[in-house]
Order: sequence, then structure tokens, then C-alpha cells
Amino acid sequence: MHMRPNDATPGSQPRSSRSRRWFLGLGTAWAAALAACTKKAPPAEPSALGAQVSAYGSRARFETASRFVNQNTKVPLEEAASRTPLHDTYGIITPSSLHFERHHSGVPDIDPAKHTLTIHGLVDRPLVFTIAELKKLPSISRIHFLECSGNSSSEWRGSGEADAQRAHGLTSCSEWTGVSLALLLKECGLRPEGKWILAEGADPCHLARSLPIEKALRDVMVVYGQNGEPLRPEQGYPIRLLVPGWEGNVNVKWLRRVKVLDTPAMTREETSKYTDLMPDGSARQFTFKMEAKSLITRPSGGDTLAGAGLYELTGLAWSGQGAIAHVEVTLDGGSTWTRAELQTPVLPIAHTRFRLSWQWDGREAIIASRCTDETGYTQPTLAELVAVRGVHSNYHNNSIQMWKVGADGKVTNANRA
Amino acid sequence: MHMRPNDATPGSQPRSSRSRRWFLGLGTAWAAALAACTKKAPPAEPSALGAQVSAYGSRARFETASRFVNQNTKVPLEEAASRTPLHDTYGIITPSSLHFERHHSGVPDIDPAKHTLTIHGLVDRPLVFTIAELKKLPSISRIHFLECSGNSSSEWRGSGEADAQRAHGLTSCSEWTGVSLALLLKECGLRPEGKWILAEGADPCHLARSLPIEKALRDVMVVYGQNGEPLRPEQGYPIRLLVPGWEGNVNVKWLRRVKVLDTPAMTREETSKYTDLMPDGSARQFTFKMEAKSLITRPSGGDTLAGAGLYELTGLAWSGQGAIAHVEVTLDGGSTWTRAELQTPVLPIAHTRFRLSWQWDGREAIIASRCTDETGYTQPTLAELVAVRGVHSNYHNNSIQMWKVGADGKVTNANRA
Repeated sequence: MHMRPNDATPGSQPRSSRSRRWFLGLGTAWAAALAACTKKAPPAEPSALGAQVSAYGSRARFETASRFVNQNTKVPLEEAASRTPLHDTYGIITPSSLHFERHHSGVPDIDPAKHTLTIHGLVDRPLVFTIAELKKLPSISRIHFLECSGNSSSEWRGSGEADAQRAHGLTSCSEWTGVSLALLLKECGLRPEGKWILAEGADPCHLARSLPIEKALRDVMVVYGQNGEPLRPEQGYPIRLLVPGWEGNVNVKWLRRVKVLDTPAMTREETSKYTDLMPDGSARQFTFKMEAKSLITRPSGGDTLAGAGLYELTGLAWSGQGAIAHVEVTLDGGSTWTRAELQTPVLPIAHTRFRLSWQWDGREAIIASRCTDETGYTQPTLAELVAVRGVHSNYHNNSIQMWKVGADGKVTNANRA
Repeated sequence: MHMRPNDATPGSQPRSSRSRRWFLGLGTAWAAALAACTKKAPPAEPSALGAQVSAYGSRARFETASRFVNQNTKVPLEEAASRTPLHDTYGIITPSSLHFERHHSGVPDIDPAKHTLTIHGLVDRPLVFTIAELKKLPSISRIHFLECSGNSSSEWRGSGEADAQRAHGLTSCSEWTGVSLALLLKECGLRPEGKWILAEGADPCHLARSLPIEKALRDVMVVYGQNGEPLRPEQGYPIRLLVPGWEGNVNVKWLRRVKVLDTPAMTREETSKYTDLMPDGSARQFTFKMEAKSLITRPSGGDTLAGAGLYELTGLAWSGQGAIAHVEVTLDGGSTWTRAELQTPVLPIAHTRFRLSWQWDGREAIIASRCTDETGYTQPTLAELVAVRGVHSNYHNNSIQMWKVGADGKVTNANRA
């Protein structure tokens, strides 16, 4: 292509009108949404040279999204949780700095050069792996969500928390990289009588969980990478177990050993905790799987809509059983449902973003999403969940989250017992 | 499931032997690779409570991977580049803190509440958008690589840089979230005589590039999100243009205006720079597309293999034209090629990780990868590239990277002019 006269004036001020009037008579799809904001500050125009290149970047000083930590509790912050700001994240990858946390004795400070993973028990050749050795083995990367089974427990008996982060922020999604546990067990010579594994962390409480060998051999990984870099300390640095689609607690962090057993180990975390009290007084145990779940994250509790007009609803859906098949949204409290658009890629056992345009008429509305996964399983209503499980369970609440948009635009939690 | 006797002893020390002898007679696939490391430190065993939950996490204090900045240059660090440690990242997502940089007048410090995007020129309704308004519009998320067309320029005349980061670190891959530029142009009433757009940044140099309208309407985005959180300052905070598969320079950062034109604007960056000097003295201009490329990142220049044995080769492949169809690896300097395994998901216009197990016999070997994209285009050798483009080009070197593994295990750059 040869040179042509320069018709434009790069570097100069835009010559166009900055009038907002255009929106008022636009008649195009998004005019009303845009017209909601009419005040404009002048464009930022830095004139001095900016900052230099740097070795390791950080976020802009204007950004303040943070994990929610409940300070008003008798539980020490070493034995606490922090929650991902789901209403304030984009796409499907959760920034590592905002991945939810749940610790039982704080975040240990582990030197990876001194840490090892022992595999023993019902194997022919017990082995000890250094981190460097694990990194030499064939690696796998997978984008998977991780959700605490205690997520959404505030919503078992109707509206509990005011916003999406506090109610549902114990789920996050990362690209994890590591080694197949099946490969490690094979190297150790797994014996046929090995039916369970016990995974134990190097945190001071030595958190430990049992997993059936079928799952251990199917898709479990020992991961050392998260979103392209080493695992974060609060996610188990230098290594954690990654158990795709199963409750967060079994994804043992700061993993120090895997013992092959013929029966489950019946640790504290699978007896006095992480069991589900049923209406008849019995307890469901080893309820590992995280079933299909979704919620609208924007708008959600705490937001205020600026008035009637066109809005984009967006949210996240996920299932521990595979890929999300579809997500439906109701705008009338559950009477009618409309298919939402899914953002590709739609990956198995990963957060999946959905969206739907909504022409809000300015009247009170109850909005919610429900998802169906590739097995055909559909997320239940709270009433359907309670009918089966009662109201004394703390774990595995995957019911539909209702939000009320008031006539004043205020969005509140509308879950009903 | 009812309770069974507790056969395991969670919380106690592993009782197994920590002997390394097993590896020596293993005979299983990865025994040799593991046996390379025989010294073990005792496992880390923190006993005090660890750190508390926190609002915003950071990486472990033991991790030091960093972008490479060439300090030995007369170019000021405000007008410089920094390079991603490709040999030291996992999976396909580049950590935002390690995404490569290329600035022409430093990183401006922009308050998003004061920044606006103006769309003007050959449109019926010139408009000014605030960041808040852009975020209200329908959003799109895409996982895409971004590569500077000057990447690998050191390798045009044979072996240039010593390692993968210095030679090829001007490519990174993120999940980007933003608004379709086509939607914005439609809101503004694009006129039929509009054939090009000029995109201009708010950095002090007002970096500006022209793009044909067909591309602008096809898949270009105005992005405000990167890997789930707001765009990083050095990636154009609060907004940048994202032009999938096209050279980094046109992905204008700190985007302040888009002007619709009938011809290209012929800015500095598309006349005196970012054109390709051909053997006959003419210059290729508007060579936007980044063609298929790959390299082995582990092992790569600067690594030392510990001796003969089984290794996993891994690397990255990508194409501006679509998805990677396959990657082949040579272990004998290009005489024979073997298909590598691709890590799913294989996404269009995204880094794609490949891997291959390699039984190294301990003798000198030349290793390399070459990729083919879904259009059937195959990455050329350096000789093939030079035969067409000569040796005076700085941009768009997508030729095959050769690494030499010496008999001493040392890996060096083996590109030959």
C-alpha cells in the first residue's frame, strides 16, 4: 500500500462536539443506558513522561476491590475465610489476589526448597518428592472453579447476607498447573487393596481429608501453578491437591503427604465437620460433589439501578459434574424464564459467564438465574432443596439466588425460606 | 456411609521410609527424571499459627520471576520494553504482573473517573463515553495473546539472545473483558464513507494507529478488564484497544479517542516505524497480522539438563489467524518431526501449550518446535523467512527457534542465519 495524504490529526484535541444530547433522541438499543450519565469531566491529559517499565507490576492505585473478611466474629482471622468480590470481577478467571480463602490454622510460610510430598501406605514403593522433582514431571493445566461447600450457607433459611460477595464469595476460578496424582501413585506402585487416600497439609493443624481411589486416579492433580505463576501462599504454596468439582476442603493445601488406605481415615474434617445434618437426624458424609449453581452478580445486592432502561444482567454458573449446558434468567420471580447467552469458552468444572439484556420498566422485579449442567441436572429452588435436606445443613446450598430490584432501583436479597 | 475404624493417623509423621533407592531400579517411565535429585531436606513443619486471611493477596516471598528490562541501553526506561519470563510461566494465562510491556512515553497515571473515550469523525453522532458508561454496556470476554511485532527481532540474523525471555518475551496471554467496538461505532452512527479508524492513546506521546474498518467491526474490543480485574496500568488502564491477532502496537493503550476516517492517518508509528524494509528497498506497510509461531520454553536457553534421561519438553504456540491445529517437535535439528500433545482448551488467537516426553541419550541435540494453525499456515524456518523478507526487517519474525542441548546438558540458542 502506498502513502496517502494524512487526513487526520493525531496528537491534537478531538474536534467533535462532546454533547450528550445525542443520546436523548437516539432510539438505538443502548441509548437509555448511556444517557443515565450526563456529567462529564474533561479527559485526562497527562503531559509529563509516565512511569518506567518494571519487573513485576501491580494494580492501579485507584482500584480497591478486596476480599471480604468478617471482622465481627470470635473466630480468629487465622481460622477464618475471606470472600471473592464476585460482583466486581470480569470474565471467568478470578484474579489470584482475590481468590477466596479458608484456613484452619493460618497460612504457613513454607520454603519450597525444603518442602516435600510423601506418598506412602498401600504402595509398593513409598516415595518422597521435592517440588523441583514434581515440576520435572509431565504437567497438566486445567481451568477449574474451586468452591467451599460452606459457600452460601447464610442462605439456607432465606435471605441471609446482603450482597453476592458475602453470600456466595467462597467460589473462585483459576488455571491450575501440576502433576496428575494418578501418575505419582503409579510411580509408587499402587496396591490393589488401596481404596482410599488420605491427603494431609503442612499447616499447623495438619488438615486431612480422605478421598476414594477412583477419584484420585481419575482427575486429581498435585498443583504448583495458579494463573501462570506459582501457587499463592493462601492457596497452598508450594503445592496443593486439586480435586476437580469436589468441595474446597478436600483440595488440601500445603500438601505434605498422601497415604493410601483401605478405608477412609475418618478425620475431624469428615466427621465433626463437613457432614450434612438431615431432617431425620442422620448425617450425610463424604458429600464431595459440588452441584450445579449460578447467580446473577450484576446487578446484585447492594447495587442501585439509575432508573428504568436497558441493562445487561451478568453472572456466573458452574457445576462440579461437567460443563454448563444452559442458564436461564427470570425477571418475574420465577414465573417465566429466558435463556441467557453463555460466554465462550464454556469449560467443564469451570465458572461460566452468562449475560442477558434487560429492558427494566422501573417497577419492582425479582430476578434470578438457574443453570443446567451437561448431565441434565438443574439447580433447585431453595424450597426444593429444603424439602429434601431440611434447614439444619450448613453445606452444599446450591439453590437459586433471588434478588429484588425495588422501584427505587435498590437491589436486595430476596431469598425466601 | 456409616463410620468405620480409623486406620490412618492424620497429624502424625509419615512412617514410610524416605529412601531414594526405589528410583534406581524402578523401570517405570519417569524414574530416571526423578532419580536426578537425590538429596532431600526434611519436610517443612510449621508449628505456630500461620498468617491471617487478607484483603488482597501477593505472591510467596520465595518467588522472584520477573520481567526482563534491558538496563544497558541509551533508551530511557519510559520508552522501553520489558519481557515476560516465558520459561518460568505455567499454562496459557500470563500473570498480569508479568505481562510484557512496551511504552513510548511511560505509563500515565490516569484517574478512571476523569478519563473518557471520544468517538468522532465520519459518524452521525460523535459521542463521549465515561468508563462507567462503557462498563454498563454488553460485555465480552476473550482469552487472547498479545505480541509485539518487534518480538524475536534479535533472531533475524541468527542466534541473538541467550534465552527465551530475552528473545521472545514480548508475547503474553490474558483473559480480556470489554465492549465490542462495533457496538460503539453503531451507537455513533458509522457513515458508509468511514473506511479506517484512528485510535489514539492518552499517553504523553499520544501514540496513534490506523486500522481498516473491516477489522474494527469484526472483533476489536475496548477492554477494561484483564484476568478478572481491571486492566493493569502498564496495559492501558483504564481502557485499551484489543485487536485480536494483530501486532501489539495497534492495541492502543490508555485509549482516549477513535476517529473514523476515509483513509489511514499515516501516523509516525505506521510510517517511520512498524513497517518492514524488504530486500528491494521497498517497505511493507500495515502488516498487522501476527502469523503462527511457537517455541520450546522448557528446556530453553540458559537451562542445564542434569544428564541423560526422560524429560518433558513444553512450550507455547499461537497464531493471529485462529486456533493452533498442531505442533511438531524435532529432536534432531529438523530432520524428523513428532506431533506434540496440545493442552486443552485450544483457543483461537491464544497461547496454546504443547508438550512432548523426550528420552535424551546424553548426546548433543538440536531441538525446536513448529506449529500449524487452522488455516493450514505453517511456521517457517529462519532461512525460509529470510528468503522472502531479507535481513533488514525488524518486525514479524515468526521463524522456528532452535535450541542446542550440549553433551554437558547446557542449552543454548542455535538459530543460524
